[in-house]
Amino acid sequence: MDPGTGKGSPSEEGETSLNATRVDWLREAERIGRRLDLLGAISEGEGALNRPPFTRSLCRAMEETARWMEEAGLRPAVDAFGNLRGWGVRENQEPVLLIGSHLDTVPGGGRFDGALGILLGISAAEILQDRAGSLPFALDILAFQEEEGARFRSGCLGSRAFLGLLEEKDWNLEDSSGISLREAHDSFSIQGWPRMEPDPREKLLGYCEAHIEQGPQLEALGVPLGVALGIVAQERLLLSFLGEGGHAGCVPMSARRDALCAAAAFVAFVEEASRREPGAVATVGELHCLPGAVNVIPKRVDLSVDLRHPEEAALDRLSQALLERAEEIGRDRGIEVGWRRTQRLPPVRSDPDWQDRLSSVITTIQGKAPRLWSGAGHDAGVFGRLVPMVLLFVRCRGGVSHDPAELVSPSDTARALEALVGFVEGFLP
Amino acid sequence: MDPGTGKGSPSEEGETSLNATRVDWLREAERIGRRLDLLGAISEGEGALNRPPFTRSLCRAMEETARWMEEAGLRPAVDAFGNLRGWGVRENQEPVLLIGSHLDTVPGGGRFDGALGILLGISAAEILQDRAGSLPFALDILAFQEEEGARFRSGCLGSRAFLGLLEEKDWNLEDSSGISLREAHDSFSIQGWPRMEPDPREKLLGYCEAHIEQGPQLEALGVPLGVALGIVAQERLLLSFLGEGGHAGCVPMSARRDALCAAAAFVAFVEEASRREPGAVATVGELHCLPGAVNVIPKRVDLSVDLRHPEEAALDRLSQALLERAEEIGRDRGIEVGWRRTQRLPPVRSDPDWQDRLSSVITTIQGKAPRLWSGAGHDAGVFGRLVPMVLLFVRCRGGVSHDPAELVSPSDTARALEALVGFVEGFLP
Repeated sequence: MDPGTGKGSPSEEGETSLNATRVDWLREAERIGRRLDLLGAISEGEGALNRPPFTRSLCRAMEETARWMEEAGLRPAVDAFGNLRGWGVRENQEPVLLIGSHLDTVPGGGRFDGALGILLGISAAEILQDRAGSLPFALDILAFQEEEGARFRSGCLGSRAFLGLLEEKDWNLEDSSGISLREAHDSFSIQGWPRMEPDPREKLLGYCEAHIEQGPQLEALGVPLGVALGIVAQERLLLSFLGEGGHAGCVPMSARRDALCAAAAFVAFVEEASRREPGAVATVGELHCLPGAVNVIPKRVDLSVDLRHPEEAALDRLSQALLERAEEIGRDRGIEVGWRRTQRLPPVRSDPDWQDRLSSVITTIQGKAPRLWSGAGHDAGVFGRLVPMVLLFVRCRGGVSHDPAELVSPSDTARALEALVGFVEGFLP
Repeated sequence: MDPGTGKGSPSEEGETSLNATRVDWLREAERIGRRLDLLGAISEGEGALNRPPFTRSLCRAMEETARWMEEAGLRPAVDAFGNLRGWGVRENQEPVLLIGSHLDTVPGGGRFDGALGILLGISAAEILQDRAGSLPFALDILAFQEEEGARFRSGCLGSRAFLGLLEEKDWNLEDSSGISLREAHDSFSIQGWPRMEPDPREKLLGYCEAHIEQGPQLEALGVPLGVALGIVAQERLLLSFLGEGGHAGCVPMSARRDALCAAAAFVAFVEEASRREPGAVATVGELHCLPGAVNVIPKRVDLSVDLRHPEEAALDRLSQALLERAEEIGRDRGIEVGWRRTQRLPPVRSDPDWQDRLSSVITTIQGKAPRLWSGAGHDAGVFGRLVPMVLLFVRCRGGVSHDPAELVSPSDTARALEALVGFVEGFLP
C-alpha cells in the first residue's frame, strides 16, 4: 500500500479523516524528510551528528524549526528555559493540547530521534490550520532541549523545566567541561528571540508525542506504527568488584582473586536472569577493568547495570536477584562487592482513553495497532505524571537509534503523520 | 633461626661457606635494606615509585649504585646502551660471571623488584672481594635499564642491547609521548660517566640473577629461597568481539547481540580452561567495552589474553582451546570474533648444573630447595638463550609485586645474600 496515492488505503475506505482525499501524505512525508536532512546537517563540528543543548548548533536548529512553525501558521517563541514553542490559534485558549519532542541529539546520533516528532507535529498543525478554530483546544508544538541528558547527564531537562519541575540542584549540573546548566543557559544566544511565557494558570489538555521506537518490535510485527502503553520502570545500579592484583605470570590460578572473572560471572547472570523474567531488559553498558594492563591480574572492576520492566514488582524481583548473586559471587571468590542504586523511576502509563483513540486511528491506517511498552524515557514520561499523555511509535530500520544509521522510511513517516492528524481530528466536534 | 647471629645456622653447621663465621648476614641485609629505601625514594614525580628508563630518576639511581659498586671494589662504567656495569678484578679476564638485575621500575612499583638483585650482587662482590683473585673468572655486577618494558612496551631492552640483540626496529619503539628509544637514549645524561665497552671477544661464563618471586609459592612452602627451573613459555592474544549496539531500554533480550555478554562468556572459559591445564596461568588483563555508556548495549569489546606454561605443547593446546571457544561463542551469539597473536616466547631453562649448585647451597641454608618455574620474564631469560643462566627466587610477602606493598624481610634478604655468595664460592678451586 502506498499512502501517497491513497489507492486502496484503509483510511480512504474508512472515511475517517476529512483529509484522506485532500492530503498527499507521502509528499508531506518527503518534505519532512528534506527538513530532517537539513536539521541533520546542523551539528557541532564536522562528521557525525552531535547537537547538544545550549550550543550554536541547537540555536541554528531552533531557527530553522521556528521558520517552519511560522509557515504552519504557528507563532514561534522561546520559554524561559530555552524550549521553542509554536503557539497555535488561541481562539480556544484553554485547554491546550501539546505535541512535541526534542531537538537535541546524542553525540553520533541519528536524524530522526526527537526531530521527527517535532516535524510531524508542525506538519500536523499545518494540515489542521484551516480547522484550528473548530478544535475544542489550542494546539501548540514544542521543541525541547536536553531530553537525551548527553551533556548534563540528566534527561528531559527541557520538559521538566517546562512543567516547573526543575530543582535548584538541576541548575548546578555540570557538563564534562565543568560548565553548569545555569551558565550554559545564561550564555545561550536567544536574546533576539521572541519570548513568551505560558500563563501560570494555563490548563493543559495533555501531551502527545510521536517518536521512533528505538527497538525492533514494530519491524518484527511488520507494521509502521504502534501505541505506547507507557514508559517502563527503570533502575540503575553501579557495582564494584574488588579483588587482588598480581603478576599475570606468577600467581597460580588457584591463588587468584581476579576481579574480572568475578565480574564476568555477574554479567552472565544479568543476561540469564533478565531472560528468565518476561518483559525485562537488563544491560551492563559500562565496564572498567583496573589497572587494565595485559600482564596484571585485574584488581578492580566497576560496572553499571540498567534494568527496566513495566511492573515495579518484577523490577524489584530482578534487582534483588542480581544483588544476591553479586554477593554470592563475592563470597565464593573472596571478592569485595560494593553497590549503589543511582536511579529508580516508576513506570508512567499513557492515558487509557487516548491510547484507545490513537489505536483506532492506527487500526484504520494499517489494519492493527500493536500496543507496546517504551523501554526508553521520553519527554512524554514527564508530562504523563501530570496530564494525559499518549506516545505514538514509528518503526525505525533494524530498531537502530543513537546512530547515524537511524532510518524511518518516507512511507512510514507518511503514516505517522496521518495517524497524528487523525488523532487530533478525533477531538473535532 | 636468626641468620644474623649464625647460631644454629645450617650454613655454620654444614661448614659450606668460608664466610659462615665471618659474615654477619643480617647486618649486610639491613644495609641492603637501607640502600633499597634510598633507591625507592628516587622516582619521577611525587608519590608512588616510578623510575622509567632514560630519565633523570634512573640516572640518579645509577649514580647511587655506582658509588656502592666502588665501595665494593668494582669499577663502575656505562655501556653504549646505558646499562651500568661494575667491573670486577680482571686478573682472570676470561670467562666472566655476570650477576645482575634491573634498575627501572613500573609506575607505582615496589622497592625490591630489580633493585634487590643488583644490591645483592654488589654485596656479594664486596664479601668476595678478598678472594676475587682466586676465582676462576672475573665477577661483574650489572644494572640494566628497561627490563619492565613499561616505557617502550618491550621488555629486557637493556639486557638485549648488552648481548647485541637489539634490532633496528627496537630503536624506533616509542613511548606514550612519541619519544623513540633512540631519542630517549641519545638525550640521556651519561656524558660525564666513565664508558667501558666489553671486548667483542669477551667470553661469558654465564649469568646469575636474584629476584623476588613475584608470586606466592615460596610463601606457601614456608621457605625464603627457591631455584627457578627457568622462565615459562608465553603467548599474548588480542581478541575483539563485535556485536550490535542499541538502546538499553528498547531492544528485547532475545534480539540482542551484546558484545560484553559474549566477552564475559569467553573470560569465564579462559579461567576454566587454564584451571584444567596443570601449570598454566591465563589472564584477561585489559578489557575495553564500547561505546561504554550506561544505557547503550555494548557493541564492541576488545580484550587481551596472557597465557603462560612451562611446556610449549601445553601452551599450544590451551591457546587453541581458547580460540575455538571464542569462535564458538561468536557463532552461537551472532558476534564477529577477531583475534591476533601479539607475542610468543619459548621457555628458557636454567642451566641444569648451575641449578644443582644453587640448590645445594640453598638446601644447606634452609633445609630444602624448591624448584619452581618463573612465570615472569627476566633479564636472565635473555641470557639463558645464549649462556648458562641461573635464577634465585626470594620470597616476597603475599606474592605481591609491581605495587608499593612489595616487601622482602631483612632475614630473607640475608639468606638470599648467603646463597648468592655460596653459589659463587662453589666455583673456588
